[in-house]
Amino acid sequence: MVTPVAFPDPPLLNSAGVHEPWALRTIVELDCGDGLVGLGETFGDAPHLDRVRRAAAALVGTDPFDLAAVRRAVAGDHTPRADGQDPVARVFAPFEVACLDVQARAAGQPVHALLGGKVRDRVAFCAYLFYKWAAHPGGDPDGFGAALDPDGLVAQARLLVDRHGFGSIKLKGGVFEPAAEVEAIQALRAAFPDHPLRLDPNCAWTTGTSAKVAAATAELLEYLEDPTPGIEGMAEVARAARMPLATNMCVVRTGHLRPAFTQGAVGVVLADHHYWGGLRACADLAAVCRAWGVGVSMHSNSHLGISLAAMAQLGAALPELTYAADTHTPWQDGVDVVTEPLSIVDGAVTVPDTPGLGVTLDRDRLGRLHEQYERCGIRVRDDTAYMRTVDPSFRKLRPRW
Amino acid sequence: MVTPVAFPDPPLLNSAGVHEPWALRTIVELDCGDGLVGLGETFGDAPHLDRVRRAAAALVGTDPFDLAAVRRAVAGDHTPRADGQDPVARVFAPFEVACLDVQARAAGQPVHALLGGKVRDRVAFCAYLFYKWAAHPGGDPDGFGAALDPDGLVAQARLLVDRHGFGSIKLKGGVFEPAAEVEAIQALRAAFPDHPLRLDPNCAWTTGTSAKVAAATAELLEYLEDPTPGIEGMAEVARAARMPLATNMCVVRTGHLRPAFTQGAVGVVLADHHYWGGLRACADLAAVCRAWGVGVSMHSNSHLGISLAAMAQLGAALPELTYAADTHTPWQDGVDVVTEPLSIVDGAVTVPDTPGLGVTLDRDRLGRLHEQYERCGIRVRDDTAYMRTVDPSFRKLRPRW
Repeated sequence: MVTPVAFPDPPLLNSAGVHEPWALRTIVELDCGDGLVGLGETFGDAPHLDRVRRAAAALVGTDPFDLAAVRRAVAGDHTPRADGQDPVARVFAPFEVACLDVQARAAGQPVHALLGGKVRDRVAFCAYLFYKWAAHPGGDPDGFGAALDPDGLVAQARLLVDRHGFGSIKLKGGVFEPAAEVEAIQALRAAFPDHPLRLDPNCAWTTGTSAKVAAATAELLEYLEDPTPGIEGMAEVARAARMPLATNMCVVRTGHLRPAFTQGAVGVVLADHHYWGGLRACADLAAVCRAWGVGVSMHSNSHLGISLAAMAQLGAALPELTYAADTHTPWQDGVDVVTEPLSIVDGAVTVPDTPGLGVTLDRDRLGRLHEQYERCGIRVRDDTAYMRTVDPSFRKLRPRW
Repeated sequence: MVTPVAFPDPPLLNSAGVHEPWALRTIVELDCGDGLVGLGETFGDAPHLDRVRRAAAALVGTDPFDLAAVRRAVAGDHTPRADGQDPVARVFAPFEVACLDVQARAAGQPVHALLGGKVRDRVAFCAYLFYKWAAHPGGDPDGFGAALDPDGLVAQARLLVDRHGFGSIKLKGGVFEPAAEVEAIQALRAAFPDHPLRLDPNCAWTTGTSAKVAAATAELLEYLEDPTPGIEGMAEVARAARMPLATNMCVVRTGHLRPAFTQGAVGVVLADHHYWGGLRACADLAAVCRAWGVGVSMHSNSHLGISLAAMAQLGAALPELTYAADTHTPWQDGVDVVTEPLSIVDGAVTVPDTPGLGVTLDRDRLGRLHEQYERCGIRVRDDTAYMRTVDPSFRKLRPRW
């Protein structure tokens, strides 16, 4: 069963605009009979939802233990393109996770056992800071407060660190002029002297600006994420920067790895099973990173508890995951589709050893979030259009500065 | 249980000397109780056997579903070295295969399901030709006949192709002067106009000789395997050669991948789960090859039916395996430790879909082969010393020509 859901999302700012009041996801249930159900979670945009629904129909009767057959069924007429792009990776991913959940439940094993076994008991996540408004336009203030300057961000960081014990901090930048964001990083360093810091402006900067910011934050950042667009641009910045550059934008499929690594464009790749094509595809990505001496971190979009569990299971099994993973979980403020979401305590999720992913769907919650989807009116995420309702002059520019 | 075995081996010639009358292997049985036993097979040399025995003792009580824990138990005090060498890979491999066998049997699934699913039903193997004597010194002629010139090799190829339907042919070279081996390839091409051909002199040649042979066989070989020692040497030959170079000698661990691929030293890597550290490690290797556009083939030493089954299960699951795999199976002439060895028909093994590896240990056969081990007197493979009993002037030289 494929169910679109929507859940409240705070007005988080980024280089493309601002998060809309509702975030969308698609929940996949793979019912194999005898009470054996596997769970997957993926993006909620309407065209993707449509592809996932068609894939689900094509999958009926396929053996959930034969992931190659599942992939073929999902792929349909699509075939990997010569340039390395894999149009089915995003559609396959939630089914792969659901199949692994089924396989693991059937075997009475946690998913991490299917991924090569657990190399760590706890998977670290970072505090993911956003510039944000106090409220959506016309709405009531949320519980997180405004964060539009260094003081606001430091307060936000304190809130998140107090709640979840995060041991490292990431700032989503690309919102204000680079100098202001450098000041924010300096303020965070002063307030959290021992927390590794990261800054991710989502390609908002030219290579020249990126190099200047890299110089200004040389002693402050564990990595600088996607300062500028493209592998060539990243490589140019990397030659000037003293910290590693990280990416989830210029390396998003297998075909990007060779050019990016050959040019020395990145020192860290953020894996994301939702678009790499599942947990095994991320393990393959990590194998390439290991061979090249490139670090691995983990990317996040707004998500619910099935994805958090999948990320934790993957993180438990990946020796290469040496950085705290991103997650939007705190911003969802406890809203979920699972009965007992995994919790982030002391900055990490303790990985479940129970069979499967370790989470169970809550049908009432799923129903409520689906009703919200039906009512919310949003069908495609569009941070830019939403920002233009507030600032009609706003344009998505990469780079902007 | 860890059992060393020995089985008759023909006098196969190579650049290091000649195969001794007995080949050694070590058979691993992982008994998990309730009749659940997993099988593994590895090298039989005494120091390795000793390490495997110590690892087996260290493993007692470890969960066979937690391969990371199994690896830690096997590793003991060993840790991967900074240069990328992994001293425990060879010891871990048979236990990893045995654990996967157990996991798959427990789940009622074939091993290929644990490796991502079956992308092909049949795994192709090549006819693996050797220059050889008619008999071991002082022994009776074996059933394969002598092969010391092109006619002998063509006859050998016909025998193997007739028996197994092989669709491609590999010649183990490095035995005679390069010009003689080029003539052999030309004779094979004339006799088998449609069979892809390969030549593997095991680093017997200088880079200059290698380039000359590459030029002389440019239209004849699908790949030239390990003509010369070292990544730098291979890269030099690769720049001159029109066919891809393949290797199982200069890329044998993760740390070799980056330098070899960066220098363009090889176009094909021969995976071998026995020294890469198991089936999953080979899947990781294949992921790196895929990212780099490097082909994958499969290497073989003298082996028995557990290894053949493991190679077939791996080959079924690896999309990247686009070449027929090596195997010594025909040279073992039906001798095995399993009840019904997988058979090579029409040049391929039909991959079993039965639970586990798809083969069952035959305890009587195991007992007989272990008795042979006890009696044969060989404890470490030494092709060079054996050759010197015939030709005291023989030395192992790489390169020789």
